[in-house]
Amino acid sequence: MAQPGKSLEMTTVQEWQDGAVQQTLDYLAAEEPLEIRVNGSPLSVTMRTPGNDLELAAGFLLTEGIIRERRQIESLEHAPQRKQSGKNVVEVRLSADAEFDGEKLKRNFFVASSCGICGKTSIDAIRVRGIRAPNPGFRISPEVLCRVPEQLREAQPIFNRTGGLHGAALFDEEGELIEVREDVGRHNAVDKLIGWALLNQVSDLGNYMMLVSGRAGFEIVQKALAGGVPLLASVSAPSSLAVQLARELQLTLVGFLRGRRFVMYAGEERLSLSRSSMPVPGAQKHR
Amino acid sequence: MAQPGKSLEMTTVQEWQDGAVQQTLDYLAAEEPLEIRVNGSPLSVTMRTPGNDLELAAGFLLTEGIIRERRQIESLEHAPQRKQSGKNVVEVRLSADAEFDGEKLKRNFFVASSCGICGKTSIDAIRVRGIRAPNPGFRISPEVLCRVPEQLREAQPIFNRTGGLHGAALFDEEGELIEVREDVGRHNAVDKLIGWALLNQVSDLGNYMMLVSGRAGFEIVQKALAGGVPLLASVSAPSSLAVQLARELQLTLVGFLRGRRFVMYAGEERLSLSRSSMPVPGAQKHR
Repeated sequence: MAQPGKSLEMTTVQEWQDGAVQQTLDYLAAEEPLEIRVNGSPLSVTMRTPGNDLELAAGFLLTEGIIRERRQIESLEHAPQRKQSGKNVVEVRLSADAEFDGEKLKRNFFVASSCGICGKTSIDAIRVRGIRAPNPGFRISPEVLCRVPEQLREAQPIFNRTGGLHGAALFDEEGELIEVREDVGRHNAVDKLIGWALLNQVSDLGNYMMLVSGRAGFEIVQKALAGGVPLLASVSAPSSLAVQLARELQLTLVGFLRGRRFVMYAGEERLSLSRSSMPVPGAQKHR
Repeated sequence: MAQPGKSLEMTTVQEWQDGAVQQTLDYLAAEEPLEIRVNGSPLSVTMRTPGNDLELAAGFLLTEGIIRERRQIESLEHAPQRKQSGKNVVEVRLSADAEFDGEKLKRNFFVASSCGICGKTSIDAIRVRGIRAPNPGFRISPEVLCRVPEQLREAQPIFNRTGGLHGAALFDEEGELIEVREDVGRHNAVDKLIGWALLNQVSDLGNYMMLVSGRAGFEIVQKALAGGVPLLASVSAPSSLAVQLARELQLTLVGFLRGRRFVMYAGEERLSLSRSSMPVPGAQKHR
């Protein structure tokens, strides 16, 4: 077990079922630390599934507001290998105008905190980074939207064997799968996907929607906005602050996308809803 | 929305089902930042569901290795309220022997890294903190174990209304529910639960098992070990590094606990398996 660079590991386990125990082989989603070093100094250590590490580092730098454009990355590579562990270190060199400052993230968070720390402060910190409302012209039909979760499941090769990974995927407005990434950390799967776009000159994500396999919290919405995605869909629930951020920055946020049902929490104008399906006035509780 | 201190928030959403759209009221799991300040300096900001904040702070300090005992916390309270946001700041004062040092976590992580950064380094960092193998005498029967997920579901009041929270719960060897905590962050739910034990003088968790609602990664196993729990069960998959850490520190790790089936990844001696159910030699793939 634990060979750097592998996404899957196999191990012997005991399986109990209805009173009988059987020894079996099981696939595990690999988890290893990845250190991201910027201009020679350590920036962060994240527990991730090995694979697509350069994308992860590039995506992380973009979604955390350290860079805004591809050209600010002068070089990006694994560290020279010392006893294999170089595979777990990515070294990045940024251009001078990236103004890299290890304390910047922390300062950004507190920049608007004259009234103290609260959800509003967190949202203001996103605004201060210059993140704007994504493409208002993106449209997708509900019927197309309902078909994307099945495509994500089919495209998640490691999840299918381990049951242990989060997935994130980009789709165009026809529901065509553009790219998918997996990781033990949901935020890493999103960073890998956005990093893939950044490194492959898919510079404008304004024409794609993103689907995530888990819940949509503040951090995931923030990363989707930093990547410029106009619609974020989740098969599960969003948090209060995720909904608030999506509404304030005009991201379309869809939750509980399962079968032929979904809930629109923000930006429903990007869903091509037919006139006959417009909301009936009057509120009603559900769930 | 976004009132500090509330665990649930209500908002109006649009629900699409089979072509028809309806305006409904939806409950959201609240998410707000919590700043933990130690001896006057900020230690961390985590996005959490408001409620049980003091437990969260106490549990975080223990599971991250900043304290080892309850008595090292001299005081623990919410900051004085400035425009309500005091509810999102917890101030902790530690005793002199806690030797608090903001750089300690980072140093611990790298302490054994002469060979570079890898999974082994991460595990060695846990050892360096003095974490030992948990109670070897704890036993639970498979039949009792199979009953605990249903009890967690019944005891998760917010999840039942939002579908948006992770749960963590302690059970004794009879399968009796001791305590449950919920949070938008899985690690926070575990920290709140361990913090509850610490603050309520339940000093020895060696007689309890912990069940978590999501996946079991390295971080969750590390927190269970820091809390002294001998058995960690998850309804989902563990990661490779979680299994490796559990095996090295002799924690019993159970995954895919669903219905009358579960998988034992480490420490199966704590499961009272009947002789007739002992493993059949010879390995066989599953899933």
